[in-house]
Amino acid sequence: MAEQESAESICPKMQVMLAVSHSIKGYPKPSVSSRNALDWIITKLLRPCCKKEYKILILHVQIPDEDGYEDMDSMYTTVNDIRSHHKTEKQKGLALLEYFVKRCNEAEVDCEAWLSKGDPKLVICKEAKERQPDLLVLGSRGLGTLQRIFVGGSSSYCAKNAPCPVVIIRRDPSETPSDPLDD
Amino acid sequence: MAEQESAESICPKMQVMLAVSHSIKGYPKPSVSSRNALDWIITKLLRPCCKKEYKILILHVQIPDEDGYEDMDSMYTTVNDIRSHHKTEKQKGLALLEYFVKRCNEAEVDCEAWLSKGDPKLVICKEAKERQPDLLVLGSRGLGTLQRIFVGGSSSYCAKNAPCPVVIIRRDPSETPSDPLDD
Repeated sequence: MAEQESAESICPKMQVMLAVSHSIKGYPKPSVSSRNALDWIITKLLRPCCKKEYKILILHVQIPDEDGYEDMDSMYTTVNDIRSHHKTEKQKGLALLEYFVKRCNEAEVDCEAWLSKGDPKLVICKEAKERQPDLLVLGSRGLGTLQRIFVGGSSSYCAKNAPCPVVIIRRDPSETPSDPLDD
Repeated sequence: MAEQESAESICPKMQVMLAVSHSIKGYPKPSVSSRNALDWIITKLLRPCCKKEYKILILHVQIPDEDGYEDMDSMYTTVNDIRSHHKTEKQKGLALLEYFVKRCNEAEVDCEAWLSKGDPKLVICKEAKERQPDLLVLGSRGLGTLQRIFVGGSSSYCAKNAPCPVVIIRRDPSETPSDPLDD
């Protein structure tokens, strides 16, 4: 046990933080850019001979539904109704995380996933400050006009403001899905 | 032998390209940002248990001396004089590379270093296109005004235009050297 601890202190795991988003279609489908980012981690970054030396920290930031449009049809009659709505949002986020956790499990690499709420770019930087990963990985659609849709607008902000090195996995134009909603 | 080949094809080395620059003081002193970038590769990216699975590709791009100011005092009387000047420039570049190759040797990681000439940002992207690394690592002074002095102006261009993922190792303001010329 003492030996194990000493070995770990000599060679701490590489902590790789990955911020993920859902597709434009919505939950629970992951965005192509987030899947690409995880693919890069698994196939290029991770060394198969020492998978135990990595830990993937998977974060999904949910944007608070400020205008409430999405729920125009909902009618709340009790406090429980409202609580149940919040629970549903959380469940959708968890369903998205499930995809990434499953992929890590299949790749036999240690991971930890969690949800947070707020402006993605700010929350990602805040969480990176707390968790101190060795690398922050973000996918990018290579667009930039769809500001509100997560990564497009967040990646360049995080590249400049995150407290750790950031790698942005850009997509080859040929990888753009034929249905933009699958993005 | 056949087994070795097969193992290599299953798990190819991670090719990490590092573009390096000299300090403002000039050759052969490496810039703080380039040293930082190599430090990050060695201490954070490389997994000590499988160093054989990495190859560091070290590139230094020399900027052609367009205005000739640096050589105002030189007088060339023969073709050999001019050739000798070119040789000297190359030798200075090689002396810079020596620092990085030595560090890789000490860290027991495979490397390859070479010089090139031209506009650093364009040459880095062109070489990355040819070598197809899994990751391009660049140091950054976090300034941006010293356009001509290598990394400052090149890193953001490369982050957008390189054909592979790019990680920029930014420097903490506290790491700024007391003598700016050491930068």
